[in-house]
Amino acid sequence: MLSPTRHRDRFVTDRAAAHAVLDEALFCHVGVVVDGRPHVLPTLHARVDDTLYVHGSSAARILAAARSGPLSVCVTVSLLDGLVIARSAFHHSLNYRSVVVHGDARLVTDAAEKSRMLGALVDRVGTERSAQCRPPTAKELAATSVLAVDLAAETTDVALKVRTGGPIDDEADLELGHWAGVVPVRLVAGSPEPACDLPIPTGLAPSLR
Amino acid sequence: MLSPTRHRDRFVTDRAAAHAVLDEALFCHVGVVVDGRPHVLPTLHARVDDTLYVHGSSAARILAAARSGPLSVCVTVSLLDGLVIARSAFHHSLNYRSVVVHGDARLVTDAAEKSRMLGALVDRVGTERSAQCRPPTAKELAATSVLAVDLAAETTDVALKVRTGGPIDDEADLELGHWAGVVPVRLVAGSPEPACDLPIPTGLAPSLR
Repeated sequence: MLSPTRHRDRFVTDRAAAHAVLDEALFCHVGVVVDGRPHVLPTLHARVDDTLYVHGSSAARILAAARSGPLSVCVTVSLLDGLVIARSAFHHSLNYRSVVVHGDARLVTDAAEKSRMLGALVDRVGTERSAQCRPPTAKELAATSVLAVDLAAETTDVALKVRTGGPIDDEADLELGHWAGVVPVRLVAGSPEPACDLPIPTGLAPSLR
Repeated sequence: MLSPTRHRDRFVTDRAAAHAVLDEALFCHVGVVVDGRPHVLPTLHARVDDTLYVHGSSAARILAAARSGPLSVCVTVSLLDGLVIARSAFHHSLNYRSVVVHGDARLVTDAAEKSRMLGALVDRVGTERSAQCRPPTAKELAATSVLAVDLAAETTDVALKVRTGGPIDDEADLELGHWAGVVPVRLVAGSPEPACDLPIPTGLAPSLR
């Protein structure tokens, strides 16, 4: 995060912590260069051990670029944790956790690997959901485009950055009388809304409750 | 969003709707090309009329690139609205609203314009917060790096994409007995946490409640 209060920002080099942020985020932003220009698209991702899979079904140009060999990508995941309210405009900031992955992506062509990736993707929506729905057919797998980045490769750079805590105000501003602090924010799930075409009353799987 | 159920995705060409998504998102992801490789960083943004401002204080390499002339950027904002649970693994998806802006960014050098941008940024945290904190000094403005993209320029492309509604299941899957529907998600604010260095009990501004 490009935060003005960057003295509170820190790069964390813990592999497990980076994986935890990748796993908590429900989607990522993938960046590629096409014709010399940057493209940043939101998409779904799933981590399986040290492989980061990125779903790319409708990003036709990105995938075309990947067909001719490894594609240089930047996959970024950001979790917002709070609004940091300072006494000065300058020191307002956000609390967040972000992971930026720079690496070469390969196009996944193996159907079994694609199927594992799709299962991991679906399991992030609800624990074991992939076992509680119809598995993909060969045709569906052929229509699914997946990029993979090896997080453990020497050519891959994984940067975790975290900002936590309250505002860092200038000493002289402390007695200005303005409120200062953090407004925590988080993503919450509402009540599940059944599909209109549910033909029979179907119980909600425990994993989705 | 690169969603498998892209028949529900639609590109919306409404300018006001695109602005509303840019304004609702608390942060964006900015993509640039540095040395031929993609870089995607989360950062703060604010829209003032048809100008999209992007904060870039710690992205030294990005800003260095912008100093030599207009910089090709991709600014993407994504709001997650729901998890789409289908009967098949393949048709799982997300409901979302995203705006992808492709354009040339200029480095803002005028102090008054930087100050307006910082005010707009702070006002997004709480209505009129910029009037309830210390305004930036000349030194702080000099230390603040801002990129600007003209949303109305002919060379700028603004794409709004929205997915709403329930899962689109295959006819044959409807009677499988799996629950299907949408789990809505939203970002909510918790109780404000006062800074530990608040020297006197200071009332929370009405705009932050």
